[in-house]
Amino acid sequence: MEIVVISSVNEAQAECFTHRTAIVIDVLRATSTMITALQSGASGVYPVETVLEARTLQQEGDLLAGERFCRKIPGFDLGNSPEDFTPEVVKDRRILLTTTNGTRAIHKALRADNVLAGAIINASACARMALELKRDIVLLCAGSHDDFALEDGLCAGLFIDRLQALSGIAVETDDFGAAMLGLYKNASTRILEPLHRSSTGKRLLKMGYGRDIERCGQIDSSIIVPRMQGDMIVQG
Amino acid sequence: MEIVVISSVNEAQAECFTHRTAIVIDVLRATSTMITALQSGASGVYPVETVLEARTLQQEGDLLAGERFCRKIPGFDLGNSPEDFTPEVVKDRRILLTTTNGTRAIHKALRADNVLAGAIINASACARMALELKRDIVLLCAGSHDDFALEDGLCAGLFIDRLQALSGIAVETDDFGAAMLGLYKNASTRILEPLHRSSTGKRLLKMGYGRDIERCGQIDSSIIVPRMQGDMIVQG
Repeated sequence: MEIVVISSVNEAQAECFTHRTAIVIDVLRATSTMITALQSGASGVYPVETVLEARTLQQEGDLLAGERFCRKIPGFDLGNSPEDFTPEVVKDRRILLTTTNGTRAIHKALRADNVLAGAIINASACARMALELKRDIVLLCAGSHDDFALEDGLCAGLFIDRLQALSGIAVETDDFGAAMLGLYKNASTRILEPLHRSSTGKRLLKMGYGRDIERCGQIDSSIIVPRMQGDMIVQG
Repeated sequence: MEIVVISSVNEAQAECFTHRTAIVIDVLRATSTMITALQSGASGVYPVETVLEARTLQQEGDLLAGERFCRKIPGFDLGNSPEDFTPEVVKDRRILLTTTNGTRAIHKALRADNVLAGAIINASACARMALELKRDIVLLCAGSHDDFALEDGLCAGLFIDRLQALSGIAVETDDFGAAMLGLYKNASTRILEPLHRSSTGKRLLKMGYGRDIERCGQIDSSIIVPRMQGDMIVQG
């Protein structure tokens, strides 16, 4: 099995995904939030690219959620903090979510045979499902704006580690994947440190979202694997 | 002091270099070879982008050197293996060198205030000179064709480690630099392992250049720092 890692949404070309299973990674915070929303009983997450699209598609009972530059979008029900997505708020509701990079990354990956949402909090469960789907795997790091994001690279390394352990074979990866695996191994016992040091982590800390970083850094705290089915992300 | 890391020559934009010191890194093998050539007494290395340019610029006494896809260019005096660049062959000679990525990367960096050639073998000496030049630093990983190369990223991490140690302050780096530092720290006691595992390393091994990998992986085995002056790379 082959694993390719794409360093940011900007580097993603449609042909990278053909016949593969894509795992989209946006640790801080879009994919962590999708996992939390489904864990809290949301009926599904509809990833949309623009604020206008979210407003246009909203039907009765739907919640609008999302951020721009880490801030909740004015007039929306929810931001992009996993803490907002409690069962009281989201149970049985459909969520229209738009974020700076995470939802864009999901759209970029749509040519893949399967699209899963991965994060540090669901790494083992998501890796297991990806292996069951028996395709080569592309890990798409959403990144921050147009750049590589440390936390997404770290998570890609964690995925390669888990995919190797669960498959019991040495999976083949490219040079960038090997680098991310090294990065993860260097930090595996203190994973919160790079999360705090990353550009997004520093921005979130400054804005008072330190608890989100802690929460998004709990390895394997969830077994929920969000999966694209039609236009919606549902529990896989 | 700020350190920016560029993942491959393809990602390098001219404005990244303005007012900075650029360290161009092509561990396997262009910058390792430049260091070896100057150490063996070559009067200078003239980096050229094409085979035609090399032939056109050749004057009496000049040596033509270079590779395409790791192979010596037909009719050239030397390939791109440091082993070829012995004092017997290169002393007091000017060398016209063209390689797939390394010489391209040098040309891309020319807008910088200073352009140095870095590799694993001259890391501390090159980091020291860069600090003395008192500019922000951009580490340009040449990469392999259009992609990131593991050995160049590893070397960028080594440079950040050395720059931090020598300056005695925590240097600021971007997310990609932080990732490369983590990669280096994970491999610092067994640096030949990732060199052998990298795409270029595997190709070189297959072609019988295993000794080049060993040689290019000897941390700080040289104190030579190649530096661009006018059109030529000379001992800095």
